[in-house]
Amino acid sequence: MKNDLLLRAARGEQVERPPVWLMRQAGRILPEYRAVRDSLKDFIELVKTPQRAAEVTIQPVDILDVDAAIIFSDILVIPEAMGLPYEMVEKRGPFFPKTVGNEADIRRLKVADAEADLGYVMEAIRLSKQALAGRVPLIGFAGAPFTIFTYMVEGGGSKTFSKARKMMYQSPEICHLLLQKITDSTILYLKAQAKAGADLIQIFDSWAGILPPAHYSEFSLPYIAQICASISEVPKTVFAKGAFFARKELAQIKCEVIGLDWNMSPQESRGLVGENKTLQGNLDPCALYGSDASIRKETRAMLQAFGGQRHIANLGHGVYPDTEPDKVRCFIETVKEWKNSEEF
Amino acid sequence: MKNDLLLRAARGEQVERPPVWLMRQAGRILPEYRAVRDSLKDFIELVKTPQRAAEVTIQPVDILDVDAAIIFSDILVIPEAMGLPYEMVEKRGPFFPKTVGNEADIRRLKVADAEADLGYVMEAIRLSKQALAGRVPLIGFAGAPFTIFTYMVEGGGSKTFSKARKMMYQSPEICHLLLQKITDSTILYLKAQAKAGADLIQIFDSWAGILPPAHYSEFSLPYIAQICASISEVPKTVFAKGAFFARKELAQIKCEVIGLDWNMSPQESRGLVGENKTLQGNLDPCALYGSDASIRKETRAMLQAFGGQRHIANLGHGVYPDTEPDKVRCFIETVKEWKNSEEF
Repeated sequence: MKNDLLLRAARGEQVERPPVWLMRQAGRILPEYRAVRDSLKDFIELVKTPQRAAEVTIQPVDILDVDAAIIFSDILVIPEAMGLPYEMVEKRGPFFPKTVGNEADIRRLKVADAEADLGYVMEAIRLSKQALAGRVPLIGFAGAPFTIFTYMVEGGGSKTFSKARKMMYQSPEICHLLLQKITDSTILYLKAQAKAGADLIQIFDSWAGILPPAHYSEFSLPYIAQICASISEVPKTVFAKGAFFARKELAQIKCEVIGLDWNMSPQESRGLVGENKTLQGNLDPCALYGSDASIRKETRAMLQAFGGQRHIANLGHGVYPDTEPDKVRCFIETVKEWKNSEEF
Repeated sequence: MKNDLLLRAARGEQVERPPVWLMRQAGRILPEYRAVRDSLKDFIELVKTPQRAAEVTIQPVDILDVDAAIIFSDILVIPEAMGLPYEMVEKRGPFFPKTVGNEADIRRLKVADAEADLGYVMEAIRLSKQALAGRVPLIGFAGAPFTIFTYMVEGGGSKTFSKARKMMYQSPEICHLLLQKITDSTILYLKAQAKAGADLIQIFDSWAGILPPAHYSEFSLPYIAQICASISEVPKTVFAKGAFFARKELAQIKCEVIGLDWNMSPQESRGLVGENKTLQGNLDPCALYGSDASIRKETRAMLQAFGGQRHIANLGHGVYPDTEPDKVRCFIETVKEWKNSEEF
């Protein structure tokens, strides 16, 4: 690997500077991505066309010079592989025509077979690895079981997630049945990603922040812990957006990296998590709407707060669709030029 | 006042049991409310018809036997009174045909005149006080300037609040100009509410949780602090949803009560806030989807965590629209029967 900064930072080794990449760097902001996307029917076709998915995976490495690629895919391929197909409605988000409402629905779902049902992801990973040719590591990913669960029960996004949350109060054992099935699918899926060439995997718990702490401990953490305990092939990152209350518990999970959103103070998080994890994040994605001078100031303050080691520089959320690529470049360059000793 | 539990708890006096009420208790869940609402054109007409607004304000006291009434109104009457009228789109939320994008837009707005522009709220308060006849206190309220600001810039709700957040990075001084104008309007508005009879006022910072801590300290806290410092007539509650990171700073504000959402641990919050504030909250609103037994268990655990004194029992968010009134009753009765010494 020519540039293995990401993997060394993840493992807690000494680095010359923090590695930098952006969540959603593939598939949101580059005009080159738009061009590929517009040549296909829709988002889901792009996800399922390995050659093109690999192409957009590599774009941020070629164009933005980030320290890692992340495979272009979608967390919702797992419910689809389990038997719940979905559509992606432009400007509105995902929509599942069929949802899960009771035990019979769950029994009908299968544990996804990574190669048979999700072979297109593995092929995209293999093609991406070829195209990367050892330049930077490739990140694989999956949704956390709780987040996937909410989509399968709600049928899409939601303001209050009342259906999913109602089920947790009314039929906790049914929830656990579904969560375990998602977990089993995810473990096989992530193992296959590692085998296909992913160098690190990230688990996205996008809706973590909607749960009371006791529910998060019951319905989300144990499944993330299972996944991390099962994957020893590659380093793991857990990003539980909004779960400020669970940082101490997340530190107990067998993962190398913990992602922070932009609400979470780096110093306070380090105190809660301890010294044995690498932290990833956490510039406010809206900071990239600012002037170059303001981006540099905010980015340096963020880097300084993390302290330079055991840190992977990133935003605190996926880059927002209307962010200008030049602003992303400014962020990336600021990280690359930064020295820990720098005064500001 | 026959039942002044709320005011005694707010002031930190000894109480026999914690008072209980629910955010959004008026105007969401009661069939009796639906009947009134359906007899009028829409939500906004109801807000502007004092006789009917007072009627739905009193309903939860008559029907649910809560320890406080909260005036039926809307935080968005302030932007309207400043010159930005809005519509309430059924199932989608508020929509502002005109929004604020630059300094000229802000200069065109006026500081709201509480009696001339918002007299219908004061009249609803006076009528509610008459109908309550000293049974329980009446709560008045307003949005926090930052939350009102986001609506005025975005023109409605949003997933990422990119427009409002972009302005904060690009033109902070313009933001402060608008925030100050909203603050000036809000102070006059809340003083008028107290004069009309409100016994306590609550400031709702509904979108607090979208800001990085540094922005919250710059764009929200100082304006809430100004408001609280200006209102000495009645006790004040500040509810900054999602601002877990600002609990220590909120404790410095001249208010009597701090509201907690359902993500915030009562014990940890007490540690951050200190002993000199009353805490309000924070049962997960989705807990009311559970069985009666489960509601009782969750409610008692919540009460125990707060410890009985310096606590106002409530949900951690407004009651959700599809909550059954009987479940709300179960919550209320559990609080009323609870004794601090109780074992569970």
